Amino acid sequence: MSDPLRLGIAGLGTVGTGVVKIVRRHADLLTARTGRPITISAVSARSRDKDRGVPLKDYAWEDNAVELAQRDDVDVFVELMGGEDGPAKAATEAAIAAGKQVVTANKAMLAIHGQNLAEAAEASGTQIRYEAAVAGGIPVIKALTEGLAGNEITRVMGVMNGTCNYILTKMEATGQGYNALFEECAKLGYLEADPNLDVGGIDAAHKLAILSSIAFGTQVNFDGIEIEGIQRITLSDIRHAADMGFRIKLLGVAQMTGRGLEQRMTPCLVPYDSPLGQLEGGTNMVVIEGDSVEQIVLRGPGAGEGPTASAVMADICDIARGTRLPVFGTPSNTLTKAPAARSASAAPYYLRMDLHDKPGAMAKVAAALGEAGVSIDRMRQYGHDNEAAPVLFVTHKTTHASLAAALEAIGKTSVVLGEPVALRIEHL
Amino acid sequence: MSDPLRLGIAGLGTVGTGVVKIVRRHADLLTARTGRPITISAVSARSRDKDRGVPLKDYAWEDNAVELAQRDDVDVFVELMGGEDGPAKAATEAAIAAGKQVVTANKAMLAIHGQNLAEAAEASGTQIRYEAAVAGGIPVIKALTEGLAGNEITRVMGVMNGTCNYILTKMEATGQGYNALFEECAKLGYLEADPNLDVGGIDAAHKLAILSSIAFGTQVNFDGIEIEGIQRITLSDIRHAADMGFRIKLLGVAQMTGRGLEQRMTPCLVPYDSPLGQLEGGTNMVVIEGDSVEQIVLRGPGAGEGPTASAVMADICDIARGTRLPVFGTPSNTLTKAPAARSASAAPYYLRMDLHDKPGAMAKVAAALGEAGVSIDRMRQYGHDNEAAPVLFVTHKTTHASLAAALEAIGKTSVVLGEPVALRIEHL
Repeated sequence: MSDPLRLGIAGLGTVGTGVVKIVRRHADLLTARTGRPITISAVSARSRDKDRGVPLKDYAWEDNAVELAQRDDVDVFVELMGGEDGPAKAATEAAIAAGKQVVTANKAMLAIHGQNLAEAAEASGTQIRYEAAVAGGIPVIKALTEGLAGNEITRVMGVMNGTCNYILTKMEATGQGYNALFEECAKLGYLEADPNLDVGGIDAAHKLAILSSIAFGTQVNFDGIEIEGIQRITLSDIRHAADMGFRIKLLGVAQMTGRGLEQRMTPCLVPYDSPLGQLEGGTNMVVIEGDSVEQIVLRGPGAGEGPTASAVMADICDIARGTRLPVFGTPSNTLTKAPAARSASAAPYYLRMDLHDKPGAMAKVAAALGEAGVSIDRMRQYGHDNEAAPVLFVTHKTTHASLAAALEAIGKTSVVLGEPVALRIEHL
Repeated sequence: MSDPLRLGIAGLGTVGTGVVKIVRRHADLLTARTGRPITISAVSARSRDKDRGVPLKDYAWEDNAVELAQRDDVDVFVELMGGEDGPAKAATEAAIAAGKQVVTANKAMLAIHGQNLAEAAEASGTQIRYEAAVAGGIPVIKALTEGLAGNEITRVMGVMNGTCNYILTKMEATGQGYNALFEECAKLGYLEADPNLDVGGIDAAHKLAILSSIAFGTQVNFDGIEIEGIQRITLSDIRHAADMGFRIKLLGVAQMTGRGLEQRMTPCLVPYDSPLGQLEGGTNMVVIEGDSVEQIVLRGPGAGEGPTASAVMADICDIARGTRLPVFGTPSNTLTKAPAARSASAAPYYLRMDLHDKPGAMAKVAAALGEAGVSIDRMRQYGHDNEAAPVLFVTHKTTHASLAAALEAIGKTSVVLGEPVALRIEHL
């Protein structure tokens, strides 16, 4: 029997508590699988007195996560505090400097500081593992970094924020509006402290930035992601999409192009009967395409105590078994800086706008679309009882550049109220 | 730069050729990812002269796979010959005895001889990796052994034979019968040399036996699997199932029960709109359920040059990176011998049989069902123009034991022509 692998866990929220429970419940199973006992030396959290439903008295307590990370009796620093900076980053850096291995669920920290942290970890001869940072219980980091290591990855896509998918699915199922469901999510505790992280697409984009880096051997580039949230999606958008055989999903897409790395996290229309279209509620799905493997689809719970703790434990078991991997799949000094590129591939778009109810308004919009080279596949104008006339277009395939030119020209006509909604239609 | 990892590849069919291509095409990428060059020292196959569309002259040739496995310039023996015994097993044993690491796609060999091979590998201080043996390009062995290592696995299910799924899907889509599609598969080269391996469910059962061992920490027990092929499924079965909102899939299920390990690979009815019901053509799907992760669904191509070679390369990359794992996830001396158990959980069943067109026939069948405690949810009798009257029952939930008793009693009534078809209805 080898020496135990000793954990120091910082953060005892849902996930941290879940990890403590698994270590206690499955001690024998984990030892059988990894060849050594997995033990907890110390824990750290904001409040020592809170009852977390799990006994903590066997473990040393640290008020300060940095001190936890540096303890001699800690082999692996398990960072489950969250937040891209602050204590999480300070403690992770301290752990790395002390040569500890790091397991984290912190997508924000990795999406923003991943390159620096990877360089520091390599310099210190250690590693950072983060299966729980992307898509909850789905072992997608492992699938991409190891399971598909023989592939040149051509595209990564996914629905990776369960809260957004819950809201969009439930709008369709119940006919409730966005605002009502946002309130429901707030009450259910489904939202991050800053809800814009969820509904604004930031959280999902953090995850996409991490997957891109592994997939394409590039330095994480969160700032290069085109991000749009779901806040402007209305019930009528969802119903129009359904009428045409589509569902609206907050979809992440990353692919390498001749001009640079395309990364976007935006609401899109996807076919109702595609795997992504069928995804309901808080479930996540990641689609990975490679030159040999063709296409792999991974589906599972994107959040929650059990699934996320399962992912953390996978990293801990790997470390216990002696597995060592570069942080983003290749050494950090080989990761390239790819320029951000907008999608050049043409796609049909769904456009919704409110026109001033005046003669000639529609003609001006149609002319602006035509002049930008955007041709109309379908159009509908709806009955209305106020001055705003809702109009819906589905375009033929067009490039992002043509569409942007058309929208700019439409804006200058002064016949449109507010901002048009433009959603890409993805035929997956 | 570390020393190269040197491969000896035995078997240059579709998969072997695919591996050679990836090693050549992605030399730099593989080196970046694993930290060392991956090279091929020698190859072996039945015919040296065949043009395989890939240059082999840089590699030493061995007529005998055993000699290939023992070469001093081979670190990893890559077994892609197939067959549960014969040269594949002899060469694998020789490689293990010589302390080589082994990568194989050979599900039959592992399902039958896995325990002995694992014991030999451990005694020799080496490992056997076999991602390509189950579900083609889907990294399911890695997901189960590593990605879900923190879970007690509760159930594994899957559609794992692409040929069967192709036939069943195409019967529904085209209205062609089983025999016509079997002939088509034979012409397309979709069938194993012994087609009963595919359509008889044996190949899929080999894969299930491997997954069970990892999932439940048991010695592979292929003989304990209840196996039924798809040969008796008719077009009318498929249409009846569709009428009720189901599709017929060759479904594998493994779960630990209080009485032992339940393993079955049988045609079942699954809901049309479930992930398994939506699976078309040669695609595979594996569903894994664990106490923490809840449910993970993995989907991808189950066969073919690229996907299967991708899986072989994943194992090779792991070895190059220094990853070491017990063959079935825990040391072979900890794997238990679980008795085979039939499913005790009740389920509705689909029953189809041909009755002699005589007065009282239906009454006898209905009585036999009732006496065995099997109650009828729905029944249909069809118009017919010969002496066999086709009759369809859907039962309420019943146990396998009750159903077996009913079928035995029905057999004794002498009013049934041939063997009834009984398919479990799985509400997933």
